[in-house]
Amino acid sequence: MTARIADRMQTISSFYVMALLQRAKQLEQQGRDVIHMEIGEPDFPSTQAVIEAGKRCIETGEVKYTAPAGLPELRQAIADFYQQRYQVKVSPERIFITPGASGAFLLAFGISLNPEQAIMMADPCYPCNENFARVYGATAQYVPVNAEQAYQLNADLIAEHWQANTQGVLIASPSNPTGTVIAAEALQQAIATVEQRGGCFYSDEIYHGLDYDQPISTALSFSDQVFVINSFSKYFAMTGWRIGWLVVPDAFIEAAEKLAQNIFISTATHSQYAALASFSAENLAELDRRRDLFKQRRDFLYENLLRLGFKVDCKPQGAFYLYADCSAFTNDSFQFAKDLLEAEAVAVTPGIDFGTHQANTRIRFAYTASIDRMAIALNRLERFLCR
Amino acid sequence: MTARIADRMQTISSFYVMALLQRAKQLEQQGRDVIHMEIGEPDFPSTQAVIEAGKRCIETGEVKYTAPAGLPELRQAIADFYQQRYQVKVSPERIFITPGASGAFLLAFGISLNPEQAIMMADPCYPCNENFARVYGATAQYVPVNAEQAYQLNADLIAEHWQANTQGVLIASPSNPTGTVIAAEALQQAIATVEQRGGCFYSDEIYHGLDYDQPISTALSFSDQVFVINSFSKYFAMTGWRIGWLVVPDAFIEAAEKLAQNIFISTATHSQYAALASFSAENLAELDRRRDLFKQRRDFLYENLLRLGFKVDCKPQGAFYLYADCSAFTNDSFQFAKDLLEAEAVAVTPGIDFGTHQANTRIRFAYTASIDRMAIALNRLERFLCR
Repeated sequence: MTARIADRMQTISSFYVMALLQRAKQLEQQGRDVIHMEIGEPDFPSTQAVIEAGKRCIETGEVKYTAPAGLPELRQAIADFYQQRYQVKVSPERIFITPGASGAFLLAFGISLNPEQAIMMADPCYPCNENFARVYGATAQYVPVNAEQAYQLNADLIAEHWQANTQGVLIASPSNPTGTVIAAEALQQAIATVEQRGGCFYSDEIYHGLDYDQPISTALSFSDQVFVINSFSKYFAMTGWRIGWLVVPDAFIEAAEKLAQNIFISTATHSQYAALASFSAENLAELDRRRDLFKQRRDFLYENLLRLGFKVDCKPQGAFYLYADCSAFTNDSFQFAKDLLEAEAVAVTPGIDFGTHQANTRIRFAYTASIDRMAIALNRLERFLCR
Repeated sequence: MTARIADRMQTISSFYVMALLQRAKQLEQQGRDVIHMEIGEPDFPSTQAVIEAGKRCIETGEVKYTAPAGLPELRQAIADFYQQRYQVKVSPERIFITPGASGAFLLAFGISLNPEQAIMMADPCYPCNENFARVYGATAQYVPVNAEQAYQLNADLIAEHWQANTQGVLIASPSNPTGTVIAAEALQQAIATVEQRGGCFYSDEIYHGLDYDQPISTALSFSDQVFVINSFSKYFAMTGWRIGWLVVPDAFIEAAEKLAQNIFISTATHSQYAALASFSAENLAELDRRRDLFKQRRDFLYENLLRLGFKVDCKPQGAFYLYADCSAFTNDSFQFAKDLLEAEAVAVTPGIDFGTHQANTRIRFAYTASIDRMAIALNRLERFLCR
């Protein structure tokens, strides 16, 4: 007799883009120059302040466990950052350092979500979100969103779709894959709507800092009962360091401490000391310069995709993604992505990685490549469309 | 209305030693010299080879995501290590790099364990193990073990206690808290007994390398259908780097890939490159010198605890723990530990952190302090017992 794979794995799928990534690697081994516009990772290196702090920690050799919730000075630094950047007061006791935003999701859902419950999420959204819920025997309840709602849930949609087993609502702003931002007022109303129903509000703010137009609001400005997931990966350019954080309501602090000590022990110590160096004025200024470069890239890519005949019905205001309607060219965007890779060595992510709503006519472009590289990619794309 | 804490958190408790740790910290702030014999973490720094490799990775600034399963060269190095150290062939495809052994447990149970099932474990054992199962809606099925079984499950116990909802068996050897090792033949029979029943066999080998008497066997020597959890934390002295690994049976590779990419994205990149430097002959020689020091400490502590009137009915052969019977002095080992800390500033871990079987008359001593420090601790302990 042989052991069986757990039932939940039937409901958890690989990202479709993984097949494209693998093929891209093969093409590169054959000498092709692949332009990567599929990757959700800043192309910038970690900043010098972070590098130096990480090295200083390692040099001592004393890379030992920290407290499960993280270094007290890092939790305080994040609390100070909320005060500086958003003028909102958050007690450091509510802040938990986690192995990436992935760890923050595992922790948030672990302390608040029961089996058979469902978390309302936008379709399209980041595909892992539902799978964190599936770990705990829960699911996502997808609500299709469109340009008129900036591809975000709002109070009306939440009220309309609330079901008996709805446990809470997740809003990611700026959104992956659409890059769209929920307006401050809409966010406040959405939170109030969830709280009226005794639900949990989860605010995925991992692309905060990479927002390009009007100031962006944290959910913490509107309620101290929300869960906020954040990360050092994107704005702070620390993907491979695997460090993020979770803010919980007061009533969940003890539960978060218990679960974190059990399922993580702690987050990588050198990553924590390195992250602590992120908050100097000089480092933040460097990160803001990079944000301005991302904004230039967004504008460049947006204008050129429209020129080529893609439609983008809600201009992205954040993250480093552009979710383009390619219905003028195909009704099978996964095949389109595969063909584009084969013909022109440009890698993009198909809509089916982000849900089912309009997914076959959507492509996500990541502007995690320089304008020079994107210009080449756009030339290749143009040739591909005229083939 | 306010959101509710998830039901599972009622079944997940903090470690009792956390209260002792907090009090120890207070005493230290008051200027007391606390001797820490409660800590499950090597007192040695990371080795120079590991430090240098970690720094080299960080210096480039290119600390980016790796493949979800980990760096191919690290997976290969671990496969080679199995060949060298155990003369067993393990395909690198079966090896997944994880954020500590914690990540390995999350991954192993996630792909193999259904809600309402139970994993058979020894009482006493490491308390987090059950909580990884609780994440997935499953539980532990504890079987009391005694000195005559070297505080380990065996084929007879497994057969006797197998229930309808038993999904598999976890054996940790060397064990935390007892430091005892399962004999090769007993391990082989235990695996066969589980496999006959179509169950999963989980072998927690995180203290491998820290074994002091006869050669220790990996479960992989007896079956390619087992799950093996291992870590760079203990023998490799890399606790704060948060890196471990999981070996899965062939049939679970795809599931492990899917779950790892969803719940971790990847393990910290600098930790992976640092771990890769562990396998040089020089570094392994240094680690084996440290192992010899741990062995000296074990012998020193073992002899002295017996001299003071503690009973140790199965001499530990590995890890860095000694699970001492303190029934000559108390029937409440948690109170004993608290009193010892207050009176003599020696910190130890009470038995109740590891189960219920004989827990109130057991204390875990960690020999993660030097012989000089332990000598002082033993003097204090002697004074405490004569108070």
